[in-house]
Amino acid sequence: VHEPSSHGFSTPITSLSVDADTLVKQIEELSTFSDSPAPSVTRILYTEKDVLARRFVKSLMGLSGLSVREDAVGNIFGRWDGSEPDLPAVATGSHADAIPFSGKYDGVVGVLGALEAINVLKRSGFKPKRSLEIIFFTSEEPTRFGISCLGSRLLAGSDALAKALETTVDGQNISFISAASSAGYLTDPAQISTVFLKKGSYSAFLELHIEQGPILEEEGISIGVVTAIAAPASLKVEFEGTGGHAGAVLMPYRNDAGLAAAELALAVEKHVLDSGSIDTVGTVGILELHPGAINSIPSKSHLEIDTRDIDEERRNIVLKKIHESANEIAKRRRVKLSEFKIINQDPPAHSDKSIIEAMVSAAKDLNLTHKLMISRAYHDSLFMARVSPMGMIFIPCYKGYSHKPEEFASLKDMSNGVKVLALTLAKLSLQ
Amino acid sequence: VHEPSSHGFSTPITSLSVDADTLVKQIEELSTFSDSPAPSVTRILYTEKDVLARRFVKSLMGLSGLSVREDAVGNIFGRWDGSEPDLPAVATGSHADAIPFSGKYDGVVGVLGALEAINVLKRSGFKPKRSLEIIFFTSEEPTRFGISCLGSRLLAGSDALAKALETTVDGQNISFISAASSAGYLTDPAQISTVFLKKGSYSAFLELHIEQGPILEEEGISIGVVTAIAAPASLKVEFEGTGGHAGAVLMPYRNDAGLAAAELALAVEKHVLDSGSIDTVGTVGILELHPGAINSIPSKSHLEIDTRDIDEERRNIVLKKIHESANEIAKRRRVKLSEFKIINQDPPAHSDKSIIEAMVSAAKDLNLTHKLMISRAYHDSLFMARVSPMGMIFIPCYKGYSHKPEEFASLKDMSNGVKVLALTLAKLSLQ
Ligand SMILES: [Mn+2]
Ligand SMILES: [Mn+2]
Ligand SMILES: [Mn+2]
Ligand SMILES: [Mn+2]
Repeated sequence: VHEPSSHGFSTPITSLSVDADTLVKQIEELSTFSDSPAPSVTRILYTEKDVLARRFVKSLMGLSGLSVREDAVGNIFGRWDGSEPDLPAVATGSHADAIPFSGKYDGVVGVLGALEAINVLKRSGFKPKRSLEIIFFTSEEPTRFGISCLGSRLLAGSDALAKALETTVDGQNISFISAASSAGYLTDPAQISTVFLKKGSYSAFLELHIEQGPILEEEGISIGVVTAIAAPASLKVEFEGTGGHAGAVLMPYRNDAGLAAAELALAVEKHVLDSGSIDTVGTVGILELHPGAINSIPSKSHLEIDTRDIDEERRNIVLKKIHESANEIAKRRRVKLSEFKIINQDPPAHSDKSIIEAMVSAAKDLNLTHKLMISRAYHDSLFMARVSPMGMIFIPCYKGYSHKPEEFASLKDMSNGVKVLALTLAKLSLQ
Repeated sequence: VHEPSSHGFSTPITSLSVDADTLVKQIEELSTFSDSPAPSVTRILYTEKDVLARRFVKSLMGLSGLSVREDAVGNIFGRWDGSEPDLPAVATGSHADAIPFSGKYDGVVGVLGALEAINVLKRSGFKPKRSLEIIFFTSEEPTRFGISCLGSRLLAGSDALAKALETTVDGQNISFISAASSAGYLTDPAQISTVFLKKGSYSAFLELHIEQGPILEEEGISIGVVTAIAAPASLKVEFEGTGGHAGAVLMPYRNDAGLAAAELALAVEKHVLDSGSIDTVGTVGILELHPGAINSIPSKSHLEIDTRDIDEERRNIVLKKIHESANEIAKRRRVKLSEFKIINQDPPAHSDKSIIEAMVSAAKDLNLTHKLMISRAYHDSLFMARVSPMGMIFIPCYKGYSHKPEEFASLKDMSNGVKVLALTLAKLSLQ
């Protein structure tokens, strides 16, 4: 079957051959750069393992003949020049950082899969018109500095973030600036805003990612075409009480910051369920007590709360109710609500219509089943959508698992995703 | 006023002069051996700071003319031989380990105060009949290995503990045995049971301690004469769920181990309050979530629970209800109750009648107000009571604060406590 008209190059679509064995080997190798034992993966921004992962990806970019550059915070770009290199390029990419004790595929499939998509196109004899670019984003996960999609938020031109990063520190009080410079970036803090992309740098941005939900697997569908990304928000909350000795302070004299935190965690669940929509989610992933001794009444507690919805207004109502509960609990338990900070409160993003069409048509060309769907997880695409038309390709993953060692995508599903990505990149490159 | 008949030595009681300035200086110096910034104190078993604190106390014992020995786990004994050194000795002492971010006085007043009591007696010209011994107990606090009163439990002959310590590890998976040997103790693990005291080693054991409660301060009373120590119990509980991505897993498909922990923490509070007695207390001082990332549903949670009462049976009912709640929560939330472990479940201890009489009479001799009271905190005295007649002397502390940096006892109150201790030791030495 030759279809030169639909995708603009003269190779049969059936010959788009993915080297899935190599892709799987690369995923395995990347997973060894980890600070927790296999099969779990822990790869935190600017640690030694993160730096090693970056070196690995840059060397693969070089092997694929891409020209590699890095920006001041370590977003990595691998470029294949098109025949009209001055046109806005078509970009694709994802992240390779991994939260503690997570898996091998989140983000990684969109980085190493993008490299394989480029290899597929090169092997097929395709010649891009617009340049194709792979982006490896710095710190999609908020693990170290509490900021999700750090690299893509900066690429999208967040002045507020550039400013905040000048004074941001991690849990060990290491500044963002010194962490970045220890990894070889940001030798001058004034460089942060050099990361901002010029508007119009890209005509399209695409991200290949595991679904992180069970739908595609359950319905036996190969490709998810993402039409929108849910609106995420996150909060930091701290309570302070008097603390004291667990034996000596009688119950009526206590103001236990830990019990205030426990109540707030349950209130988050309640407000989320009260939204009445299956699409509202909320999670207390971090709950820490100070001083953290069995015989000491907690004098401080610290919670980090994540809530999301495809409906921004409904999510904002949940945020408001969480705030009301925090105040009410503090008052009733005579603890101080010493912090209630909205870390981020992002609107949802919508995929570009013509990119959706390109993805759908690529899936059809390849005889792969597809489904239009929502991304409930956020991605760097959420922020790339602010500076470029955006689209995302999902592939099934085992039981929808993500952020844990059991996370898995099959060789077949990854190959399908890479093919759809390659063909969509080709189509968009010629537009 | 000479009262040679009542206390057996010929110095006027009014001349029992405490060198409170030196005592305060020593307390300040000991507080500098800490792993957290002043005014907080953190001194954990067998760390460098614990070893330095031990060296400091041993050198003071030497300066007071005591003969010093240490047992296999680092209980330290400073002995002043009496005129009848073969009689069971009279002992006093306390601990100097400090939970994270706690204060300078808990335990320390009973160690450095005991040294000053010996100095007072020496300066007064007193000659003991029974030998007097100061004991510095190893790890009263359960911080590192989860075992409270480790030293005194072993002195009291706990075979079960000696056995358990062969395989006990801390949170960093460092074994008790290797931690002890890195501090210069336990060169041979078989030595653990050499710590057991021979029955009849002591005719009395006394502990001077801050009250860790507000009663003496509020009522303006100088000396608390402890008649009983509440019955403590502690639990370790773990829940396990499926975890997953905080965005992608919808609420009905979750089994959040963190919310199970939050519910159990609140259930502990409820069951304690339901006991109906002011004397029942319960605390969740440790609550940890795994993996502990803002965008990850907790797949594991770990709680450590402390509960106490002066009524052992009533406390055991609370334990039983906590267990029922843990099971009920696990079932309802579809998480696994992967651990429910009773770490200790100790009976209360009662002070010896003749020691109570000696303490009361000492307070009266010194014209100090006193009050008979319960100790709600446990102490090494709880376990020493198993192998020796026991008594405790409490002094007021600021607002009842303990286990936090604001912990404070005044120079005057400490002097009073040291005097009562000295006089009681003298009386008991002559009995
Ligand atoms: Mn992720
Ligand atoms: Mn991701
Ligand atoms: Mn204590
Ligand atoms: Mn103590």
